[in-house]
Amino acid sequence: MRNRFKWKVSSALSAVLLILPVSYVANADTVQVRNVPKTHYLEAKSENVRWGNIGKGDPVLTVNSGDIVTVEAVTHHSGDDYERMIKGDAGAEDIFHWSETEKHEAERGPGVHIMTGPIAVEGAEPGDVLEVKILDMKLRPSGNGEYAGKTYGSNVAANWGLLYGEMEETPNTREVVTIYEMETKGGNDYAKALYSYRWTPQTDPSGTVHPTIDYPGVIVDHSTVEENHDVLKGIHVPVRLHFGTMSVAPKEADVVDSVPPSYYGGNIDDWRVTEGATMYYPVSVPGALLSVGDPHAGQGDSELNGTAIETSVTGDIQLILHKKAELVNKLKALNFPLLENENEWVVHGFSYANHLAELGKDAQTEIFKQSSLDKAMKDAANKTKSFLMRGMDLTEDEAYSLMSVSTDFGITQVVDGNWGIHGIINKKIFGEKEQKRALLRNSFEQFGADIGWDPATKMITIQYNDNTLLAKIGATTATFNEETIKLTAPIQLNDQKLAEVSEYFVTFYRAKLSKTE
Amino acid sequence: MRNRFKWKVSSALSAVLLILPVSYVANADTVQVRNVPKTHYLEAKSENVRWGNIGKGDPVLTVNSGDIVTVEAVTHHSGDDYERMIKGDAGAEDIFHWSETEKHEAERGPGVHIMTGPIAVEGAEPGDVLEVKILDMKLRPSGNGEYAGKTYGSNVAANWGLLYGEMEETPNTREVVTIYEMETKGGNDYAKALYSYRWTPQTDPSGTVHPTIDYPGVIVDHSTVEENHDVLKGIHVPVRLHFGTMSVAPKEADVVDSVPPSYYGGNIDDWRVTEGATMYYPVSVPGALLSVGDPHAGQGDSELNGTAIETSVTGDIQLILHKKAELVNKLKALNFPLLENENEWVVHGFSYANHLAELGKDAQTEIFKQSSLDKAMKDAANKTKSFLMRGMDLTEDEAYSLMSVSTDFGITQVVDGNWGIHGIINKKIFGEKEQKRALLRNSFEQFGADIGWDPATKMITIQYNDNTLLAKIGATTATFNEETIKLTAPIQLNDQKLAEVSEYFVTFYRAKLSKTE
Repeated sequence: MRNRFKWKVSSALSAVLLILPVSYVANADTVQVRNVPKTHYLEAKSENVRWGNIGKGDPVLTVNSGDIVTVEAVTHHSGDDYERMIKGDAGAEDIFHWSETEKHEAERGPGVHIMTGPIAVEGAEPGDVLEVKILDMKLRPSGNGEYAGKTYGSNVAANWGLLYGEMEETPNTREVVTIYEMETKGGNDYAKALYSYRWTPQTDPSGTVHPTIDYPGVIVDHSTVEENHDVLKGIHVPVRLHFGTMSVAPKEADVVDSVPPSYYGGNIDDWRVTEGATMYYPVSVPGALLSVGDPHAGQGDSELNGTAIETSVTGDIQLILHKKAELVNKLKALNFPLLENENEWVVHGFSYANHLAELGKDAQTEIFKQSSLDKAMKDAANKTKSFLMRGMDLTEDEAYSLMSVSTDFGITQVVDGNWGIHGIINKKIFGEKEQKRALLRNSFEQFGADIGWDPATKMITIQYNDNTLLAKIGATTATFNEETIKLTAPIQLNDQKLAEVSEYFVTFYRAKLSKTE
Repeated sequence: MRNRFKWKVSSALSAVLLILPVSYVANADTVQVRNVPKTHYLEAKSENVRWGNIGKGDPVLTVNSGDIVTVEAVTHHSGDDYERMIKGDAGAEDIFHWSETEKHEAERGPGVHIMTGPIAVEGAEPGDVLEVKILDMKLRPSGNGEYAGKTYGSNVAANWGLLYGEMEETPNTREVVTIYEMETKGGNDYAKALYSYRWTPQTDPSGTVHPTIDYPGVIVDHSTVEENHDVLKGIHVPVRLHFGTMSVAPKEADVVDSVPPSYYGGNIDDWRVTEGATMYYPVSVPGALLSVGDPHAGQGDSELNGTAIETSVTGDIQLILHKKAELVNKLKALNFPLLENENEWVVHGFSYANHLAELGKDAQTEIFKQSSLDKAMKDAANKTKSFLMRGMDLTEDEAYSLMSVSTDFGITQVVDGNWGIHGIINKKIFGEKEQKRALLRNSFEQFGADIGWDPATKMITIQYNDNTLLAKIGATTATFNEETIKLTAPIQLNDQKLAEVSEYFVTFYRAKLSKTE
């Protein structure tokens, strides 16, 4: 299927069409992207990653606004099952390489995650907003021939989990690792537990003993643990692929712990940061400096035991720069990581909105003593109210009433120091204002795509570059280059029997179709 | 449509069929209901309600297990717009009647809600569990001819709201009432704001001035307030009808404030307590003594400003008693209000699991000083873990891992003293074990219903008593006695092309079809 349809527009015309704006903030002014968007590939290997640090640093890649980056992100929990998650995977082997005499890791930050990046965005300056569209996420298959094509993750009931030391059974301070395998069959993906084991003291190559899980990178010696294969039998955990940690660099410190999330994003651990979603981050250093990591295959709101299903993922992300002077109301003075998807705006609040600025010189350690959902609730409530006022043109009284009768607040996480609460604003409430409709054919033809329509199968074909999206009217899934994907929303027929989608759909799939090899 | 189909089984046979068990806990042992279930009607009138008290008291109605009660519940915020919510409504007029010389209200409890009940259940004893199925909820139309057929509610940004005193604009301690009107057009119901006003000191018939909103029952004198009709224009809040407060009586006190929720239920303020849901309450006094009130037309998780869209509702509920000796694992030693619906189990945690027992003799006032989401999170986490262990036969390590990777924790409310956090367990995770499938025809015929099937329209007819459910294969809505309803789940065809539904569906619609006039 991939190569059956060929790009039919002459290359001259195509060049013209490609300089049309390729991205919007939904319902907002367009942002001119001057260059033809490029697709970059950013491998996970030791020189492209930093451990536990999302601060300023030399970019491993510099892109223009509108560019797409295929970014590999490897989980810091890979060492929980070396055989399945490291062995035979050149990138993971390189990143985790640590012998008595050699350690590929350059410098450990105060945090834990393996962060790919930073990626600099040409022209980004403090006060701008960086938009990151998550166009695609794919689990990274095992590099070990024995497990070819299979995908794995690790969940750890860790010493930083909420109920550590308060379990019913003894020892109530046990740490338990559960290895999951993901079954991915297009649209109905799930994870099943393979086995679990209780952490035992592990000795790293420098001879340091780790009685608890305190240093990712340590490879668990499976001869020292007892595997229990009778675990969670018959249970299928829905796969929710997402990046636990995606972050621009904050201005307040040079080396920044990747664990506590904050105004700059970081380890938000919201499972909604997934394919089809768009993140907006306030830029506070030149180049923005985006780091991507901590991929998860499944997590509940709260990430209760300290971790999700920690796995490795390769994602396609599009980076779009919004200059300070041209920000739409929703993004003006943005001081938190904002999420948008087809149906929602999601506001992220924390115990401290900006712990680095609020907690003094020891902020990065102090924050772990100041975790509080009560504070996070106030922060999320105030941010949501402000967003409704400035972004949706409501008075304070209108915003406050509307929040109480319609905004759902959930617990993002209680395990990352700066605890999180998010407010979910349903776009539907605002009608066409927040979910503008567009004719599918016009929107994609304007962009330069070829549209096909088969009345017999009711199948629509959208071709652009070397990519093909095949979707049926009303269907929730579609085919993208032979792969089944979940659509952000079904294509619908309007009263005139013309295919119609949301503006968000248009923007998102224009971007997804723009990827080149 | 209502009378077109007639009950075709002879009355003798019908009597036999009716003594078949009518209710189950999904996936659990059946409970024998010995008597033919009766339908009772419980009017909202002053002698059937108590204000602000959900404690022990003389029942206004006694029912047998399996009986259905049509219960009228009137909002304590009706006085915010007397013209629309009280005038011409005999029940509301009776309840709110208060002149210089006469007050119909018998005795005010420490709380605020108008609670219909208590309803006693024959044979209920401490240690039993009371199941309450919410079969139907309907908005109560205005009794005022000028507003015939219309339905209204009031949202109040109150002095107990989370951001009271912390608003951006002055006076930051203002209280604002927003009156909403509900548009109910089958399946796509929404509420729109009509107008708002700032609370001004109101003088009640005894001459007491209420500078703040501190005593429901006071009728707002609209000549003293300024109505702002330019409010939330074009905004449609999805209607989520639910009972904010439904409660059995606790054993710890005689008069019990209806505001803080606790192990006995009470003012949980979870919008999931809606049509199609089932609640389970631990019984701690003889007769269980169920009170029902505080109906809401819309609320977000957290009920941020202090209230929902407070409205009046008439509901059909079925009460089923589960005796202590026969409790299934999920209900054994139940010590919190548990919710079940087609797709979820919802565990309710609070700052204090049982504030009456934990906070000493002044517990009912002390709880308002001890509100904390951090405590509620621990409580919700521990209850969820315990429920997964005892109810789903998981080990503690399995339960803890599963929660972290799949259970979503949300903020139920932050305005009721005993703050709430709920954990949502997705039944799908457990497959057939938690979502048992049943053949529709067998299940309803066994029960004594008549099943019709029109291959042309793919419409299924289920008739029982004088009730008819008409549903299409795959549809999310159906017709019940000419009224459009949302189905708990669509009817599906199995591999043998036979109509199949979940066991929960069977139990729920058997009960709904059992109602008699």
